[in-house]
Amino acid sequence: MHRYRTHRCDALRLSDAGNDVRLAGWVHRIRDHGGVLFIDLRDHYGITQVLCDSDSPVFKEVERLRAEACIRIDGTVKARDEALKNPKLPTGEIEVYVRDMEVLGPVRGELPLQVFGDQEYPEETRLRYRYLDLRRQAMQDNMVLRSDVVASIRRRMWEQDFREYQTPIITASSPEGARDFLVPSRLHPGKFYALPQAPQQFKQLLMVSGFDRYFQIAPCFRDEDPRADRSPTDFYQLDLEMSFVEQQDVFDTVEPVIAGVFEEFGKGRTVDRDWPQISYADAALWYGTDKPDLRNPIKMQDVSEHFRGSGFAIFAKLLEQPGNEVRAIPAPTGGSRKFCDRMNAFAQKEGLPGMGYIFWREADGGMEAAGPLAKNIGPERTEAIREQLGLGVGDAAFFLGGKAATFEKVAGRARTVIGEELGLTDKGRFAFAWIVDFPIYEKDEETGEIDFEHNPFSMPQGGMEALEGDPLKVKGFQYDLACNGYELVSGAIRNHRPDIMLKAFEIAGYGEEEVKNRFGGLYTAFNYGAPPHGGCALGIDRTVMLLADEDNIRQVMLFPMNQRAEDLMMGAPSAPTNDQLRELRLRVLPPEE
Amino acid sequence: MHRYRTHRCDALRLSDAGNDVRLAGWVHRIRDHGGVLFIDLRDHYGITQVLCDSDSPVFKEVERLRAEACIRIDGTVKARDEALKNPKLPTGEIEVYVRDMEVLGPVRGELPLQVFGDQEYPEETRLRYRYLDLRRQAMQDNMVLRSDVVASIRRRMWEQDFREYQTPIITASSPEGARDFLVPSRLHPGKFYALPQAPQQFKQLLMVSGFDRYFQIAPCFRDEDPRADRSPTDFYQLDLEMSFVEQQDVFDTVEPVIAGVFEEFGKGRTVDRDWPQISYADAALWYGTDKPDLRNPIKMQDVSEHFRGSGFAIFAKLLEQPGNEVRAIPAPTGGSRKFCDRMNAFAQKEGLPGMGYIFWREADGGMEAAGPLAKNIGPERTEAIREQLGLGVGDAAFFLGGKAATFEKVAGRARTVIGEELGLTDKGRFAFAWIVDFPIYEKDEETGEIDFEHNPFSMPQGGMEALEGDPLKVKGFQYDLACNGYELVSGAIRNHRPDIMLKAFEIAGYGEEEVKNRFGGLYTAFNYGAPPHGGCALGIDRTVMLLADEDNIRQVMLFPMNQRAEDLMMGAPSAPTNDQLRELRLRVLPPEE
Repeated sequence: MHRYRTHRCDALRLSDAGNDVRLAGWVHRIRDHGGVLFIDLRDHYGITQVLCDSDSPVFKEVERLRAEACIRIDGTVKARDEALKNPKLPTGEIEVYVRDMEVLGPVRGELPLQVFGDQEYPEETRLRYRYLDLRRQAMQDNMVLRSDVVASIRRRMWEQDFREYQTPIITASSPEGARDFLVPSRLHPGKFYALPQAPQQFKQLLMVSGFDRYFQIAPCFRDEDPRADRSPTDFYQLDLEMSFVEQQDVFDTVEPVIAGVFEEFGKGRTVDRDWPQISYADAALWYGTDKPDLRNPIKMQDVSEHFRGSGFAIFAKLLEQPGNEVRAIPAPTGGSRKFCDRMNAFAQKEGLPGMGYIFWREADGGMEAAGPLAKNIGPERTEAIREQLGLGVGDAAFFLGGKAATFEKVAGRARTVIGEELGLTDKGRFAFAWIVDFPIYEKDEETGEIDFEHNPFSMPQGGMEALEGDPLKVKGFQYDLACNGYELVSGAIRNHRPDIMLKAFEIAGYGEEEVKNRFGGLYTAFNYGAPPHGGCALGIDRTVMLLADEDNIRQVMLFPMNQRAEDLMMGAPSAPTNDQLRELRLRVLPPEE
Repeated sequence: MHRYRTHRCDALRLSDAGNDVRLAGWVHRIRDHGGVLFIDLRDHYGITQVLCDSDSPVFKEVERLRAEACIRIDGTVKARDEALKNPKLPTGEIEVYVRDMEVLGPVRGELPLQVFGDQEYPEETRLRYRYLDLRRQAMQDNMVLRSDVVASIRRRMWEQDFREYQTPIITASSPEGARDFLVPSRLHPGKFYALPQAPQQFKQLLMVSGFDRYFQIAPCFRDEDPRADRSPTDFYQLDLEMSFVEQQDVFDTVEPVIAGVFEEFGKGRTVDRDWPQISYADAALWYGTDKPDLRNPIKMQDVSEHFRGSGFAIFAKLLEQPGNEVRAIPAPTGGSRKFCDRMNAFAQKEGLPGMGYIFWREADGGMEAAGPLAKNIGPERTEAIREQLGLGVGDAAFFLGGKAATFEKVAGRARTVIGEELGLTDKGRFAFAWIVDFPIYEKDEETGEIDFEHNPFSMPQGGMEALEGDPLKVKGFQYDLACNGYELVSGAIRNHRPDIMLKAFEIAGYGEEEVKNRFGGLYTAFNYGAPPHGGCALGIDRTVMLLADEDNIRQVMLFPMNQRAEDLMMGAPSAPTNDQLRELRLRVLPPEE
């Protein structure tokens, strides 16, 4: 007989009745039914009911057992009485009568966290005793899901003719917009390595090396200020790159991978197979964000024309200045003053003066437009707005005016709240959209300086010629994939031409020397026969979060840091030893300096 | 037509003749056959011959092409003349006549490294221009092999019912014997994270968390002084751990995985399926190392008895002191004075006074033992030695005396050289052996202090009871797998009992407080129902190195550091900016301090 177990805790069936078996696992729950002790014995695979009475030679020992002790039992499989069978449990038709028991791992002291039951604990407790927290079924399920999702992604990438290659983790700084984690070098004191924010440069170098199709489930490192939906230290992405491709090729390649994974693990939720391509500009106009939630059918519209010169003086005046506009958020079924006032209050809470609104209700067998705005602009304009927005009785529309930049984000959030509150957002669905045509540059409003909007590696649409015009009008072959309001994927066709690269950097104020300093490896490589290439990266943690229907990334990570970037269980970060500092030739300065 | 290619460079066949195609790739080689230009166009998948003559509209442009330029061509597939077909090339029956050509990525300046041909370059050149080096067929093959090996390992682990889980990379120090890489914390200035030397503690915590079977293709980080067969920064291992197992269970689980991988990628080399278990002590005696190469049939033997009180005064005198011994290295077919003298010189070069020897040759129709030793000890003892070693005419034996520790390593290397020189070592074979029964402790010869021989996480054989006796006699459930002279795997059944853990540390001079400080997370976890567990780790880089028949680890890594732990291509490590140091509150000290 095996030293610890003949069966796992999900294995025994009625056909095993009469057999002597050995099981090992944790005491999930122990109940005393008048001298008969019932133990739910749990392992990773399932639960088996074990019982013991005073006839058992180990009754005394079993009586002393505590929840979460790790034990081995020997016993005989018995059929349960018909009335006591538990159809919810695969092992529900049997139980095991204990003849021998051994405590493999006892519990000392009070359990800081119960595994059985639904009691909630502060996150700090859960992270400090993560090994207990992870024993809970929901966490076991999440981690198994994560493992299965990653394996499925890998399999699908191989099916798409990609190979996985591992790129260095201790490497040079790769300026991606976030802060690098640095690693001091002992062999070269005073110099530092950096952990990669992404394998961006290496995957591009792989294309220059002729590898054609690369992917990696890659750990990425960004020293970021903590936020609920992101890890403050390391996270994983599916990183991929392809040579000799255009933007549409990348889309055609990753769509089946992502859709396949969502279908496989979506637990019955609908997975859209029609993924619209929406320009960055349209996404801003229609949804107020570059990661729209398309489960929400609301699409904003520019309604400036209806307010120009109208009786609603605030908007009419605004529109006299160039660059201002009035935008409408249609709210089907939102046609009540109560709802409209609540949304107006929402906008005020978000820092806007408020949102004007119109709603349409029945009146005298016909339709009536209500709300202060309607009165000011009169029935004709009101009706034109209603027609443009395709609304009717029972519906409402909200209006925001000014420079788009001042209200767009709030408008986007209002759209989300309206969709949620009115039940318009279909929760049983994954809705995807490619956001395309990102601008390459942005202008710092304060300094007036022009800098890269995203990373500097994207190919400008129109190539060199485009760079010779107005930089703020240059769009990149750069794209995101939005899913249910999250940015799931980000990517680009890269700028593989050193001449265009230099020009692109020049516009952002970087000279040739600086390009060579910061991206010397890649820049030099591009001078030796670089292929056109492009790719993208998909956030693994976020994907699993969506599939697990969680809204905290720590729910889908085994041993996450807390929000202060500490690991309380392992005690990280911690003070270095003097020897370590000496070897690295570093001194820690006091806080005052 | 696709923007860049209709076919890959390995795709076209005779049946495509007459078709218009588009190809993209690199100019592998360009030849001018009297006004007809032949280009070997290469991509990741293969090579297609492309030709062009002065009738082609792009003849002039093609004429100017240089090796390693990345180009697109449009052309017509033509059958080659029978005499010009190349049966070695899958595309060898056709060629493509060029009508249009576009340079996608030109080459500027001289190529620092030719891709075509066999010219050798200094490693520094190869690493600095790794993207050119990687275009060479041998490197493409190695990287593809590596990718395929890792994928095969993953598949086999899933088939063994393991799941892959990712453990943290930015974490706490995990004292494994080597030096940690530290990562200064910005949010907690003066404190440092560490990169894991291995996921040792996390995988054990996963077992305490109830996950039963874990594996990971895990990046590991050790700040080690450089060596040819190891990366000075990061490397990969197949890390695995199982609950409720004994040592033999681990062996039974990983043997089919490893044997399967070696059979799949061994290119016809024999893969031993019978893996002996050899104790650490026997391995030292027989092979002079704990990673013996069993392709070499030579097994050393203790022959002290034959020399005790013999006429060979040096050994006879040595043996009067306790702890000394005389060991023989049998050398079948090594029976010539020339060979014996050469091996004696080898031992002297390795720092020993030399190796005595006897060899057996034909004499007067019979056998004669030759060499100085034989004369000194006389025919009877000589014959007894010959019989013990099972040698005959044409064979030799070498002898080393003293404390095993003083000669054992050299003896092991002599065994290797003898096996190689005499052609006894079967090069077409992978020979595996489990080395078991490692001692838990070792004694520092200088200080007399007792410390852990390996890592402190192994369960001592005999448990608590064993620890109460002579610590130097305590063996651990700790094991290595040797393959062809390399340590391929290392592992153990872990010490999951906090009481035995404290005792084990106490013997090595660590008090309870120190255990809690250094391994607090794990130690605390063991108090809440820890299962018995064990596992191992397999070196991925080394496995691929063996399969690729390379003896330099950088041949199987994409972008390795050089031996000074520098990445010359990317410029790592490099000086930090003042802002970075300020944020981390660090100062770099000058070399003098």
